[in-house]
Amino acid sequence: MSTQTVTPEELDLASLRRQIDITLDDVLRSLSAEGSRCLGNHDDPSQILNRYVSAPGKRIRPLLCVLGWHAGDGSGELQPVLRTAASLELFHVFALIHDDLMDGSDTRRGLPSAHRAVAAMHSERRNAENFAASAAILLGDLAFVRSDQLLHSAGLTAEQLHAVFPLLDAMRNEVLLGQYIDLLAEGPPSDDLDRALTVARLKTTKYTIERPLQVGAALAGADATLFDACSAYALPLGDAFQLRDDLLGTFGHPRLTGKPVSEDLRSGKSTALMSLAVRNASPHQRRLLRDLVGDPDLDEQGATTIRKVLEETGARQAVEDMITHRHREALAALANPTFPPAVTEALHKIAHSALARTS
Amino acid sequence: MSTQTVTPEELDLASLRRQIDITLDDVLRSLSAEGSRCLGNHDDPSQILNRYVSAPGKRIRPLLCVLGWHAGDGSGELQPVLRTAASLELFHVFALIHDDLMDGSDTRRGLPSAHRAVAAMHSERRNAENFAASAAILLGDLAFVRSDQLLHSAGLTAEQLHAVFPLLDAMRNEVLLGQYIDLLAEGPPSDDLDRALTVARLKTTKYTIERPLQVGAALAGADATLFDACSAYALPLGDAFQLRDDLLGTFGHPRLTGKPVSEDLRSGKSTALMSLAVRNASPHQRRLLRDLVGDPDLDEQGATTIRKVLEETGARQAVEDMITHRHREALAALANPTFPPAVTEALHKIAHSALARTS
Repeated sequence: MSTQTVTPEELDLASLRRQIDITLDDVLRSLSAEGSRCLGNHDDPSQILNRYVSAPGKRIRPLLCVLGWHAGDGSGELQPVLRTAASLELFHVFALIHDDLMDGSDTRRGLPSAHRAVAAMHSERRNAENFAASAAILLGDLAFVRSDQLLHSAGLTAEQLHAVFPLLDAMRNEVLLGQYIDLLAEGPPSDDLDRALTVARLKTTKYTIERPLQVGAALAGADATLFDACSAYALPLGDAFQLRDDLLGTFGHPRLTGKPVSEDLRSGKSTALMSLAVRNASPHQRRLLRDLVGDPDLDEQGATTIRKVLEETGARQAVEDMITHRHREALAALANPTFPPAVTEALHKIAHSALARTS
Repeated sequence: MSTQTVTPEELDLASLRRQIDITLDDVLRSLSAEGSRCLGNHDDPSQILNRYVSAPGKRIRPLLCVLGWHAGDGSGELQPVLRTAASLELFHVFALIHDDLMDGSDTRRGLPSAHRAVAAMHSERRNAENFAASAAILLGDLAFVRSDQLLHSAGLTAEQLHAVFPLLDAMRNEVLLGQYIDLLAEGPPSDDLDRALTVARLKTTKYTIERPLQVGAALAGADATLFDACSAYALPLGDAFQLRDDLLGTFGHPRLTGKPVSEDLRSGKSTALMSLAVRNASPHQRRLLRDLVGDPDLDEQGATTIRKVLEETGARQAVEDMITHRHREALAALANPTFPPAVTEALHKIAHSALARTS
């Protein structure tokens, strides 16, 4: 049970997000000034990176990190917590830049993706595409380096550092290994539900929800009970979050998601939604999926055909049901009075906005 | 002056290298076992990564790290020092995998480069080249993650961690920013000597020689005097090391360097050697360089023509002179009695093998 008294006002999500943005802006400025000292008057890629980080984002990982700290009744300065939270966002920028390059995605957060932005800046080069791919690899790597740099200089005690290291290491292994399985899965649509759920667990659930919350809790000196309470909320919520994402990627409105409507279908992304459809499909439906899903030239008519199969096989409804079930599980976990009431309230809101979203 | 008595036998480079290799093998095994627990029975990329790390290498960065520790009269357990040294090698594997992908290099350490190895394993895929590029990005990222993981679990004290963090952060920024300037420099051969020397300073000198030595010294609680003594040796040696590399890349024997003889010339690598040649070239020679250097279809006859221009403009000799001058400077720095005699002796040997090498 909580003994401290963090208030709902202190945990207002909009104002926490503002504090995270301010911290990010501050650290980006000082990290690039420091990093660039060795460059003399040679070109500095930091500005491209910083523009990318500063673009509006949900900041869900840093938010959960700060909430995790409050969940553990963290006391003392908030600044080291905010800096650790911001370092998660910088790590995420690393992952996004490399992901967008691997997926060939053109946009991110309403802006051109990093490799697209670089290609546009250097369109006069003989081999602009290759150049941009190399630059994006390096920009991603630089984001990772600066995420570490921020963590190293966050002002954490030795105890805090040793508490967060294993969680960060696990998180980073998980997201990369999840991405690797996902990459291996490329190919015709598959009925492998276990693989789709494992990828979701590693790439989204643990990476986006569970580990950030636990990192914050670790900063507050969390014990095993608190870590478990974090997981009890985070695992069903994170799984549901990814399932919602899959539905939005297929049925969502492109104006709201900021992504072309059928990118998931065109790239043949391996999702629980698709694997359920393949499982329940008639031979005719299965043939349709095989022919259309993952076709780089898929048009709107083809996408509509796929969507119809996803509906008729009951896959869409099954995923909606999975989301509802997991959402309930996450809320039930919050009924456990391990967290201070204001934290519980904030986590309720996060669950709601993560699952009721349209983008 | 040294008060301890590290002996030349303790600093035998071959046996230090063996200890580093054993440490690397140990940690790779345990890191992949730990990392892979989250994978269930899904494919684990760790084996590809581990094969790559275990391939014979010079291990110059970890060696210098251990020597740096002895330079600072390090006392206590050697194990945390060896693990920190091994983490530098894992970071280097990250850099190599991404570099090879960016440069389109086919071989590394006598084996196929990571993206080539993956492409061969998955040649049946529709888009094996793209798949391999993505896999290589992820394998590089995973090496970075595990380098950090190794550092985090090296058993360093809080004091040691805070002493090495700023050095590691600087080193990582330097190598990536150097790589970025180098990437920007792609294009026709240039007379920009300053740029070529800056890239060499960041990508080689500081990354390969100065920072590893300083990281080791920091583990031993080095003060500013010791850090400066490290730099006084490392900066001229590292610059000379890169200049030797440029000569070998152009004039070296492919059987000894393990690289196709004219890869540097074919890729149009921006080097001090080339910029000196462009500076001193006659209009006719400059035209030859412009036409031939960086031509992806360059043949042996073209390479011979370029080599002739590099000789006739005096660029080759000028670079030999720069190496001799810097080698002397590095040795003069060792005459300063800051380091224990056995360390001085080992650093002498390293300077010799770095500059007299034929591969």
